[in-house]
Amino acid sequence: MTLTETKIDSQTVFRGRLLHVCKDRVRLPNGKETTREFIIHPGAVVVLPFLDDKTLIFERQFRYPAGKIFIELPAGKIDPGEEIAATGRRELLEETGYIAESWDYLGKSFPGIGYTNEVIHIYIAKNLRLLKQSCDADEFLEIFSCTLEEALAMLDRGEIVDAKTQVALLLAERKLRKT
Amino acid sequence: MTLTETKIDSQTVFRGRLLHVCKDRVRLPNGKETTREFIIHPGAVVVLPFLDDKTLIFERQFRYPAGKIFIELPAGKIDPGEEIAATGRRELLEETGYIAESWDYLGKSFPGIGYTNEVIHIYIAKNLRLLKQSCDADEFLEIFSCTLEEALAMLDRGEIVDAKTQVALLLAERKLRKT
Repeated sequence: MTLTETKIDSQTVFRGRLLHVCKDRVRLPNGKETTREFIIHPGAVVVLPFLDDKTLIFERQFRYPAGKIFIELPAGKIDPGEEIAATGRRELLEETGYIAESWDYLGKSFPGIGYTNEVIHIYIAKNLRLLKQSCDADEFLEIFSCTLEEALAMLDRGEIVDAKTQVALLLAERKLRKT
Repeated sequence: MTLTETKIDSQTVFRGRLLHVCKDRVRLPNGKETTREFIIHPGAVVVLPFLDDKTLIFERQFRYPAGKIFIELPAGKIDPGEEIAATGRRELLEETGYIAESWDYLGKSFPGIGYTNEVIHIYIAKNLRLLKQSCDADEFLEIFSCTLEEALAMLDRGEIVDAKTQVALLLAERKLRKT
């Protein structure tokens, strides 16, 4: 049995400042036709910025869709034509004011495979140096630092519920435990 | 500094078979006005179905937005008015044909806080009994089983990249390691 669905045609049903929503007619594995609605996304990067061997930089940010403040790692969308690694450097600097000397790729995560093609690339950033914070005009966030161990305790208590931050922290813990 | 943004008004910009897309005018912490575009989502449930102490049931499913097959745990959206636990039981039965006697809540995860209010509730299901698989008409998937250890190895190799499955597996591993 093949599982693959193939595109018949595609239509943009909404194009806003942030979201690009498509509705495609597709052919199912059984030959029948259906529609798939989804968001076209350029991809994103999330960064684990290590201030020292144990301490990470986090953000508190109000997220309008769920209407609450989330604890997150620095992250952001890939700009058109931008290298993935450059996105990581740019977002870390814009959101926290830090630059990092060493970068390691930790893995990737698709946050919403049912309705978006978004992929998030996860980096570990080390050897940080503080420059200057310069957020987007409509981005308001608080920066704080805490150890990976404390962050994992927050995750266990349900205080860290942002998926990209959960995956990044748990993968980092796994990697550090093995090395 | 407050981080909270408040709604001025809201408008549905697309309502399809799957997606409900809103565009709200909001007041920023600095008093200025902007727009927020996002998807209204009813929430979802993902299930870790343990066949025995070590073995889990997985699915291979083609996901149209990213155009590839993903390895996933059974999951699905909460129906209108449905209890969260009932969604878990229903999706496990529909997608795998199994019912489970014991259910444990493991935690929750917000997959895309930038553009959706979706929250995914994570359950561990044990003491399974096979009834009969009955997928949605346009849902095509393959079922397979493998141990949690094998699944974590796949995750480490980048073969499991679905965020809800990553979070669920890593939280389950963390919980089992501690008990």
